[in-house]
Amino acid sequence: MRVLGVDPGLTRCGVGVVEGVAGRPLTMIGVGVVRTPADAELGDRLVAIERGMERWLDEHSPGYVAVERVFAQHNVRTVMGTAQASAVAMLCAARRGIPVALHTPSEVKAAVTGSGRADKAQVGAMVTRLLRLDAPPKPADAADALALAICHIWRAPAQNRLQQAVAAHRTQAAPGTSRTPRTLKGRTA
Amino acid sequence: MRVLGVDPGLTRCGVGVVEGVAGRPLTMIGVGVVRTPADAELGDRLVAIERGMERWLDEHSPGYVAVERVFAQHNVRTVMGTAQASAVAMLCAARRGIPVALHTPSEVKAAVTGSGRADKAQVGAMVTRLLRLDAPPKPADAADALALAICHIWRAPAQNRLQQAVAAHRTQAAPGTSRTPRTLKGRTA
Repeated sequence: MRVLGVDPGLTRCGVGVVEGVAGRPLTMIGVGVVRTPADAELGDRLVAIERGMERWLDEHSPGYVAVERVFAQHNVRTVMGTAQASAVAMLCAARRGIPVALHTPSEVKAAVTGSGRADKAQVGAMVTRLLRLDAPPKPADAADALALAICHIWRAPAQNRLQQAVAAHRTQAAPGTSRTPRTLKGRTA
Repeated sequence: MRVLGVDPGLTRCGVGVVEGVAGRPLTMIGVGVVRTPADAELGDRLVAIERGMERWLDEHSPGYVAVERVFAQHNVRTVMGTAQASAVAMLCAARRGIPVALHTPSEVKAAVTGSGRADKAQVGAMVTRLLRLDAPPKPADAADALALAICHIWRAPAQNRLQQAVAAHRTQAAPGTSRTPRTLKGRTA
C-alpha cells in the first residue's frame, strides 16, 4: 500500500509518501513541506495548501491519506490553523475518493518508537532507520509526515480486522437498516 | 454590496445572502443551511460542505464572504469541526478571488442588537426587523449567517478606512518592501 502522511500546519504542512506492507521493509517515495507565507490572508493560505496537496496527490497517487488528528488542548491560536490546514488536506483526499485516516500524535510516536511520549529527535531517528535514509528528513514536520504514513501502514491490518468485526456486528444487530452500508465502507482502513 | 454570511458548522452550516449599503435598508437575497450527516466520514462531510458552498456562490455571486471567527475556548470537539467547516468556506471563496472577512460572535451581536452579549432570540428578532421578514429565519444558524452578512455591510466602511490608514502608514514606514502590496489588497474590507 502507498500512503501519503500529512502533518498539518498553516505555515508548514509536512508531507511524506511511504510504500510497503506491515512486516516488510518500507520505502520512502517522497517527502517535503507545503509552505504558506505567514503574512498572507487566511483564505489565500488555504488555497496554497490545497494546490500543494493536489500536486502531491497527482504526482504520487497514494491509496490512503493519513492525517494527524488535531486536539484543542494546546496553543489555541496554532490549533485553529492546524485544524483548518487538516480540513483542506482531508477535503482534497476525500474529493478524489481516497480513504482518509486520522492518527493521534501518541499513536504515531508509539508506532515508530515504541513510546507514545517519544520526542521529535527519537521519531526522526526511527524514521531514518525504518526508511533506510542517510539522515533524518528536515524539517521535523517532514519527518512527522513520514512517521504518520508508517504508522498507518502498520496499524492498517488491525484497523481492518476491527472494522470488519464492527460491521459484522452491526449487520447482525440491525439487518437492513440504512446505516449498515455506511459502516461497511471501511474508509479509514 | 452583496455579502454571503457563513455560520460554520459540520452538522449545520448557516448561509445567508444580504444586499445593501450602510445607512440604507437591507435586502435578504437568500437564506439556508448546508447540512452533513453526523455519521459520515469527516472527509466526506467536508466535501459535502464544499459542494454546498459552491452552489451558494454560483447562485448568488456575492462580492464578499463573511465567516464567523472561531475560538477554541468552548467545547473542544465542536470547535474543531467548526474550524474545519470554516476552512472549507474560506477556501471556496478565496479560490474564486472573493475577499473573505472574519467577524467575532460579539462583533456580530453588537452590530445587529447593540450589545455584544445579546442572546439568539434577540439576534433573530433584529435580523427579522432589519431585513423586514415575516418571521425569524430558522434554524438559528441561518439567522446568524444573515446577521454576519449585515455586520459585514455595516462594518465595511470603517474597516476600509482603517485598512487604508494602515496601508498608508506601512507605505511610509517601509517604502518598496515586498510586504507593502499585500497589505494594500484590502481583502478583508
